[in-house]
Amino acid sequence: MKFVIIGADAAGMSAASRAKRNRPDLDITVLEKSQDVSYSACGMPYNIADPTRDIDDLVVRRAEVFRQKQGINLLTGHKVTAIDPEQQRVSGITGSGESFEFSYDRLLFATGARPILPDLPGIDSFGVFTLKNLEHGRRIKNYIHKYAVKKVIIIGMGYIALEMCESLLAREIKVDMIKPNPTFLPWMNPELAEQVKKEVESKGITVMAGHKINKIERTGGRIIVQSENVVLMGDMILVAVGITPNSEIAAKAGIALGPGKAIAVDANMRTSCENVFAAGDCADAIHVVTDNKAWIPLALRANRAGWAVADNICGEMVSLSGVAGTAVFRVFDMEVARTGLNEDEAKTAGFDPATVTVKTRSRAHGHSGFGTIWVHMVADRPSGRLLGVQMVGSEGVAHRINAPAVALLAKMKVNQYCQSDLAYAPPFGPVWDPTLTAANQLIKILHN
Amino acid sequence: MKFVIIGADAAGMSAASRAKRNRPDLDITVLEKSQDVSYSACGMPYNIADPTRDIDDLVVRRAEVFRQKQGINLLTGHKVTAIDPEQQRVSGITGSGESFEFSYDRLLFATGARPILPDLPGIDSFGVFTLKNLEHGRRIKNYIHKYAVKKVIIIGMGYIALEMCESLLAREIKVDMIKPNPTFLPWMNPELAEQVKKEVESKGITVMAGHKINKIERTGGRIIVQSENVVLMGDMILVAVGITPNSEIAAKAGIALGPGKAIAVDANMRTSCENVFAAGDCADAIHVVTDNKAWIPLALRANRAGWAVADNICGEMVSLSGVAGTAVFRVFDMEVARTGLNEDEAKTAGFDPATVTVKTRSRAHGHSGFGTIWVHMVADRPSGRLLGVQMVGSEGVAHRINAPAVALLAKMKVNQYCQSDLAYAPPFGPVWDPTLTAANQLIKILHN
Repeated sequence: MKFVIIGADAAGMSAASRAKRNRPDLDITVLEKSQDVSYSACGMPYNIADPTRDIDDLVVRRAEVFRQKQGINLLTGHKVTAIDPEQQRVSGITGSGESFEFSYDRLLFATGARPILPDLPGIDSFGVFTLKNLEHGRRIKNYIHKYAVKKVIIIGMGYIALEMCESLLAREIKVDMIKPNPTFLPWMNPELAEQVKKEVESKGITVMAGHKINKIERTGGRIIVQSENVVLMGDMILVAVGITPNSEIAAKAGIALGPGKAIAVDANMRTSCENVFAAGDCADAIHVVTDNKAWIPLALRANRAGWAVADNICGEMVSLSGVAGTAVFRVFDMEVARTGLNEDEAKTAGFDPATVTVKTRSRAHGHSGFGTIWVHMVADRPSGRLLGVQMVGSEGVAHRINAPAVALLAKMKVNQYCQSDLAYAPPFGPVWDPTLTAANQLIKILHN
Repeated sequence: MKFVIIGADAAGMSAASRAKRNRPDLDITVLEKSQDVSYSACGMPYNIADPTRDIDDLVVRRAEVFRQKQGINLLTGHKVTAIDPEQQRVSGITGSGESFEFSYDRLLFATGARPILPDLPGIDSFGVFTLKNLEHGRRIKNYIHKYAVKKVIIIGMGYIALEMCESLLAREIKVDMIKPNPTFLPWMNPELAEQVKKEVESKGITVMAGHKINKIERTGGRIIVQSENVVLMGDMILVAVGITPNSEIAAKAGIALGPGKAIAVDANMRTSCENVFAAGDCADAIHVVTDNKAWIPLALRANRAGWAVADNICGEMVSLSGVAGTAVFRVFDMEVARTGLNEDEAKTAGFDPATVTVKTRSRAHGHSGFGTIWVHMVADRPSGRLLGVQMVGSEGVAHRINAPAVALLAKMKVNQYCQSDLAYAPPFGPVWDPTLTAANQLIKILHN
């Protein structure tokens, strides 16, 4: 059986490796347009922060290992331009301009996503970067080094933008952040978002939310972001305003798309087209809270979906439960996490949300060195079901979000979650875990 | 309605405060034999570690606040010696030798537990301590100061013993540990227990497991522990070999006891005797994994059960789901956690356990500063149900145990747990959370 995979990062290489382990006789070809395979994209901000480290440290497994040790026909510099679902063939062009064509019995789209580039004059100027793949990271790192960058303007304030703030400051590079939307972290409860904003500003970063950008301009070795009321000048611009799935080739072949124009898949990662699968940032998923389709591109799902495709191709039907959108990021000395729906998403999904925000200590009463943890919890008023949790704090947030994430998968009500027997010791939290304190408060609201 | 509570720590004062909030007209009397109320017992090792802090820093709310602001008749120095369930009366004696008697409509046993004292010659010597209540902590702290303690022998190797190691070393006091059982942490998977032992030994502590102790002796200002093959000499002895519930008065009144001689309660915290409740370290609970009774005295349960009693007395019937035995402690630079059953407990409960132990990084590939996390996971072979998890590591263990704890409450199978959408960011863990890696491995075993 010929298994062809388009894209050689998390989803693609997870699928390739696992399929080969499942069935060593499989004929697996991976077509990757870039020269980079199987790397930790999420690690790029931390790698960029450290000038002594090579960006290729982020490579999890080198192409040679896949080729020689695993017997996977991994072809880099192979850009797929079309698929023919009738003939079960993919075609494209190599980096050196040669055409190629492969037939498949099973095909996997693991084409990922790419940064959104806003339609701005000067967006293609020298010194304007995005950060999604390893080549982006490499270019940024080289540019910072070569041009001794002292000041970066970041357009956007999402988690990549925020992680890059920390990364750049670690290299003693000053940062201004700007974006048109006046709300700092629009998906986050305002009280919690304010804590993150304060943290960022406390590090000397100027946060300008609500500034429409008119143009980018390169002038006299520097680069300028011009908005209505402010002109920002720096040595480099990072555009981090979100990503969009690489689904055009699939769409062109008639494969159905889902939310965010991601490739629509069922619980088995099958697309609308026979023998064609999709996994990773290019594919959608069922949301465990809404049971509706959602596009929430995250690394764990990409790996898990890649495995599921491999198993399904090899005859062991695996279906995935779906995603809760559980995510965490660090911004300087603050941990920021979420799982499930926020209040607006809950309303959109047809729930009647009740919410609570609590502020608790990160360690027990009488234990020194404690910080503050804010928990925002959302539940459905009529059913009492837990819908989502957001959390920020100086410590103890990153892994704490996982308990409500499991509760979402189990479709627990708040009054069930608040019976969870969670761990307690003075260095690690109060007797009542902050998420339990939030649940206890929320129950009171639900009962009224 | 007269609500009488015996014991003024976590369970007792949680019940008193909440009952008063629920129904301000309640006539609440709390009878406490000591002079200490409402303190963070778990914080004692950390407080003892710091000579600049007063042990009373651990008091969460002072007796005067309960009396004056909350209108609770809190009587310290009141030792209850008997109850008469027919007449609904409790009687006892005060610190100054006066008898007292109170009638009740509802009674709560929140009598806690006390340290076990092994039957050893010399166990009552000057300089031999246990650590369970605030007075114990106060005595230890005073003794260390007054006698400039340089060396402590700890009998026992449970979590109090281990936390006290850290505490004493912080005060530059040397520690030897000794106990008769040859297994270091007998409830823990040996591979994980070995990591904890190494951590303790790496700090210069002598760990002598498997040494039967013959006697304790005070001689020439020092104190000696004599076993078959070794004589240990120190300035102080801490006996930390476990605790036993204070259930004698209840038993004498004909109230049924459960496992570990704890007072047997139903899901509403009712004892076998009408209008008599029990909560906290003196009471048993349903185990969420086995559905059998278990005695696992922990702080969160004490607080939660206290609240449940208050609500039940005030007419809002609350039943508790039970305990998973989720616990965490820190030993120097290591976090140690567990939830649910270990392999032996699983067998005893009639399961057919399959187990796996995995060793993972605490941070992502390519992220600096990572440590190691060991996860041991237990499942039931025929049903695939998750039964328990143990974890040790240098970071990221304490809150990570909560995700499987919620899964236990939801009675999840391993193949459900491994679909959990858990958080990932490079500073906080690998893409696959260590508990997911363990679950993925365990599934393979379960399928074979």
